[in-house]
Amino acid sequence: MMSKNNSSGVVLTGPLQCPVPSRKNDVVLLGHGSGGKLTSELVRNVFLPAFSNPALDHLGDSAELIVEAKRIVFTTDSFVVSPWRFPGGDVGDLAVNGTINDLAVSGACPVALSAAFILEEGFSIADLRAIVESMRAAAARARVPIVTADTKVVERGKGDGVFITTSGVGVLPEGVDLAPEGIKPGDAIIVSGPLGDHGIAVMSAREGLEFETTVESDTAPLHELVATMLATGAEIRCMRDVTRGGLATVLNEIANAASVRVLLSEPDLPVRDAVRAACEILGLDPLYVACEGRLVAIVNADDAPSLLGAMRSHPLGSDALQVGTVVCRSEARVLVRTAFGTTRMVDALPGALLPRIC
Amino acid sequence: MMSKNNSSGVVLTGPLQCPVPSRKNDVVLLGHGSGGKLTSELVRNVFLPAFSNPALDHLGDSAELIVEAKRIVFTTDSFVVSPWRFPGGDVGDLAVNGTINDLAVSGACPVALSAAFILEEGFSIADLRAIVESMRAAAARARVPIVTADTKVVERGKGDGVFITTSGVGVLPEGVDLAPEGIKPGDAIIVSGPLGDHGIAVMSAREGLEFETTVESDTAPLHELVATMLATGAEIRCMRDVTRGGLATVLNEIANAASVRVLLSEPDLPVRDAVRAACEILGLDPLYVACEGRLVAIVNADDAPSLLGAMRSHPLGSDALQVGTVVCRSEARVLVRTAFGTTRMVDALPGALLPRIC
Repeated sequence: MMSKNNSSGVVLTGPLQCPVPSRKNDVVLLGHGSGGKLTSELVRNVFLPAFSNPALDHLGDSAELIVEAKRIVFTTDSFVVSPWRFPGGDVGDLAVNGTINDLAVSGACPVALSAAFILEEGFSIADLRAIVESMRAAAARARVPIVTADTKVVERGKGDGVFITTSGVGVLPEGVDLAPEGIKPGDAIIVSGPLGDHGIAVMSAREGLEFETTVESDTAPLHELVATMLATGAEIRCMRDVTRGGLATVLNEIANAASVRVLLSEPDLPVRDAVRAACEILGLDPLYVACEGRLVAIVNADDAPSLLGAMRSHPLGSDALQVGTVVCRSEARVLVRTAFGTTRMVDALPGALLPRIC
Repeated sequence: MMSKNNSSGVVLTGPLQCPVPSRKNDVVLLGHGSGGKLTSELVRNVFLPAFSNPALDHLGDSAELIVEAKRIVFTTDSFVVSPWRFPGGDVGDLAVNGTINDLAVSGACPVALSAAFILEEGFSIADLRAIVESMRAAAARARVPIVTADTKVVERGKGDGVFITTSGVGVLPEGVDLAPEGIKPGDAIIVSGPLGDHGIAVMSAREGLEFETTVESDTAPLHELVATMLATGAEIRCMRDVTRGGLATVLNEIANAASVRVLLSEPDLPVRDAVRAACEILGLDPLYVACEGRLVAIVNADDAPSLLGAMRSHPLGSDALQVGTVVCRSEARVLVRTAFGTTRMVDALPGALLPRIC
């Protein structure tokens, strides 16, 4: 520490005695993660203008929220998608929507998000601004504020541009109790829209592939669609967002939790032509390709028609349809009946089909 | 997808048709982040045995909590400390204690934590187990469960072993309203114990330095100390944990928020001899070196003696003492009166004094 004392013993000069080191404004520096002045500048120049809200603005180490329910839901996800920008989205809106969706499929109304950034030294501040703007827009679209945040910086070569971890808090309305244990034979399996768009969008950006039509990520917040679904009063047993591992993996997890056999109808599976074509080129099964704005719901079959009607009235559920049924209680198993009338078993994703897809 | 159909059209073989690829069990693989079987194995073999609790055990994408208060507090922090193990702790207990402390200094009782792991391909599973065990022990010590989690894996060279982001939810007891705006001239500034142990412990591990005595990190959960403090009824204006940027930076932030001038007494600042010696060797001012288990409180001076008495009755506050006072309303400023009677101004940390200290 430099200090300048005068005879009275009290330093009268201002903060200039500890000058902020001259710096390039265009890239992330290690000092941006030090917790001192550079961190504060980054917060005030980049994060605060985008995310501003009463809970965040006081810039404490935490945020206070008022919750109007006793049951809250809490979730977290890190987002390390590579590349960070892809057709239809980027790591920013993905991080907002992904955590909202984890709350949504539990039946909760999202209340607030946190965001923790791990930046690599040298990452472009302009790119960081673009990501933050994308988070702002996603949070505004979903009407869920980002109320608390953190920034760390690691040395060049010790990270990969930007990783974002979002956590979310939601409130569970009274009477909402979704759990796979409630699944019964005969229940309908409904998906809210086409499968695999997100995974193929990221793969096309990563591999520099061009298909006849651009496949855009389906990244979107599902809580309003879920609210529409719950409002129908349909007996929804459980819901999941169809992310890493795709529909096959998610249904295997549900089948395991409920100890049931599930049968999908392959001709009914909604997969866009462009996604199907890309999957053929890449050697992928669309059943394993991630979405980031689709959900699967298991519902009393009697309620399926009215539920589908309600879902189709919502822009994010306009292509909703039933893709299968719960067959019987049994050792957990997910089967697919093909267009040829044969049936194959689909297991959970075994290995690393698509690394860093979210 | 491989599939094996028989004449009935139904596959009767078990999951072996999609074999888990043979793998080395000793390091993290990209597939551990795929969301499929390897992720599930990692969760069931490493995370679940350590963190098991009713909210986590159902392994959903979120956790349900019952909260007995309307005001909740929400916080998040990423932990990228390098090296991940240091005298007195590791990234695991740091991640648990750090987020508990952000809740604690708001006056909240911590309810639950989330943990999101970003692992580098090739990271040792044995080391991961050690970190997870350390998190388990820290969560058990603090009696705050880890209720929801996430794991991502990035390619070798795109991360640095392990980064952990924890978020926390706490409840604010009625009547607790800590905010720097309540600070008044004459208030006492109290710290709960010696400064700089954590930063020096990490630096010594990083640089391979040996001092006459080993300096151990002070990483610890402060919520019980805070509860003891609040129970005294002392007029506590605000509290902060003394982390990145050290006491100087934290007090500058408080002084800014309250628009006050603060005067510290240098001879009263508690700094262990070994920390002071290390700081001299490393050219550091202990006022800027991070702690991870110390807090600073601003309190009505009349209540300071009884508050200090209560703090000293708690193991984490046994060395608590008053180190300064709030002098007057003014442009925000933190001054230190030295042993020689001179006074110097200390600013917030300007740059990157100690990168990746937490």
